[in-house]
Amino acid sequence: MEKIKVIGFDADDTLWINEPYYQEVEIKLQTLLENFLPAEKISGELFRTEMSNLHIYGYGAKSFMLSMIETALKIGGNDLSPNIINEIILLGKSLLEKPVELLDNVKELLPELKDKYSIIVATKGDLVDQQRKLNNSGLVDHFDHIEIMKDKQEKDYIDLIRKLNIKNEEFLMIGNSLMSDVLPVVSIGGKAIHIPYHTTWIHEIADKNSITKDYIEISKLSELKDILL
Amino acid sequence: MEKIKVIGFDADDTLWINEPYYQEVEIKLQTLLENFLPAEKISGELFRTEMSNLHIYGYGAKSFMLSMIETALKIGGNDLSPNIINEIILLGKSLLEKPVELLDNVKELLPELKDKYSIIVATKGDLVDQQRKLNNSGLVDHFDHIEIMKDKQEKDYIDLIRKLNIKNEEFLMIGNSLMSDVLPVVSIGGKAIHIPYHTTWIHEIADKNSITKDYIEISKLSELKDILL
Repeated sequence: MEKIKVIGFDADDTLWINEPYYQEVEIKLQTLLENFLPAEKISGELFRTEMSNLHIYGYGAKSFMLSMIETALKIGGNDLSPNIINEIILLGKSLLEKPVELLDNVKELLPELKDKYSIIVATKGDLVDQQRKLNNSGLVDHFDHIEIMKDKQEKDYIDLIRKLNIKNEEFLMIGNSLMSDVLPVVSIGGKAIHIPYHTTWIHEIADKNSITKDYIEISKLSELKDILL
Repeated sequence: MEKIKVIGFDADDTLWINEPYYQEVEIKLQTLLENFLPAEKISGELFRTEMSNLHIYGYGAKSFMLSMIETALKIGGNDLSPNIINEIILLGKSLLEKPVELLDNVKELLPELKDKYSIIVATKGDLVDQQRKLNNSGLVDHFDHIEIMKDKQEKDYIDLIRKLNIKNEEFLMIGNSLMSDVLPVVSIGGKAIHIPYHTTWIHEIADKNSITKDYIEISKLSELKDILL
C-alpha cells in the first residue's frame, strides 16, 4: 500500500448503518400489503420495480419510496386503499430522518489515517440524504473531499480519480460492496479493501467464486490499522 | 469583469428548458384532481406540500413526484382512486425522460467563453436527473467542472468557490433565478448576471424592489458576448 495517496470510503454500511433500516421498512411494506400477496412475492415485485426504475431514478431513499408506491399499486390494483400509500410515504420519510449510527471504530480510525493519506467519501445514493447523513455523522471535517456519485461503475471511478488528480494505482477504495466498491476499482488498476457487512442489498451481491481480481478482505474496520498505518 | 476566472452557469432555464415542463405536469395534476378541488387550490396545496418537504427531499423531479402524490392523498382522502396515483407516477417519469432542449445561443456561446474563462455548471436538483440532462445536452465537454448542489445558498457557494480554489470576487454566476443564482453570490462578494426566463417557479421569485445588491441583468444569453468577450 506504499503507493496509495487517496483512500476512498464508501458510506452506507461502511461508515454507518444503512441497509438494516431499508430492510425494516421493507418488512413494514410486506405487512401493509399482506392481504394481497405473501411477503416473499412482495419483495420480489419490489426488487423488480426498483431494477426497472434504476436508470431513471438512480439510488437512494426517494427512489425507494417511489418504487414502493409503484409496487403497492401493482399488487393492490383498484383495491388498494389510499391509506396504504400514505403509510408508505411516512415509512419513506422515517428513513430520511433516521439518526446516523456510526459503525465501530470509524471515529477513532479516520483521524489516524488522515495523518498519512488524503481521505475522501465516495458514495452513491440520494444527494440530499447523503449530505444530511454526512452532516449528522460528525465526520465531515475528517474528509478532504466528498463525492456523491450517481453510480459506482468503472467509468464513474475513472472520472473520480481524474478529478483527484492522481493515478489509478494511487487510489484505494474501502467498502462493504464487492459490486460497487471493490470490483470496478480493481478492474481499472486501483486497490480495494472489502469489509463485508452482515447484510447486503441483493442488487449489490456478487458471486465471490467468480472473482479472480486481487483485493484484500478484512472483517472489521480496526484491521485497517495493520494494513495502512 | 476583468478579475473573473471562473464562470458558473445555472442549468435549468438558463442552459435548457425546465420550468415549462413542470408547469405542464402541474396542469395535468389539476385535471386529475378536478373532481375534488378547483385548479388554483390544488396548486396552492402542492406548493405547501413541496415547501414542507424541501428540507428532507431537496429539489428535483423525484421530490416533485412524491409531493404530487402526497398532495393527491391530502385532497382526495379515502375517495382517491389508486389509478390517479398511477397517473402521477407516469407524469413524473415523463419529466425524467423529456428530451433536453437547449436555449438560444447556448451552443455557440460556450466555446467562445471557454477560450477566456474556466466555465462550470452549478445547478441544484436531482443528481441522476441533472447528470442525464447534461449527458443529453451535448454540452459536457465545454465545462471544466460540474457541480450538482443540494442547495444554492451563500454557504453552498462559499463551499463551491473554495473547491474551485479562487477568490469570491473571481467568480461570476449566470442564471435565471435571482434567489438562487444572483443574490447569494453577490452577497458573498462574487459577481452575478441575471437572465430572466419567461416563467419562474414561485419558490425562486424574489422581490426585485427589495434588492439593493449590485448585479447585471440582460434579456438574452447572446448579450453576454459584449460583457465578457
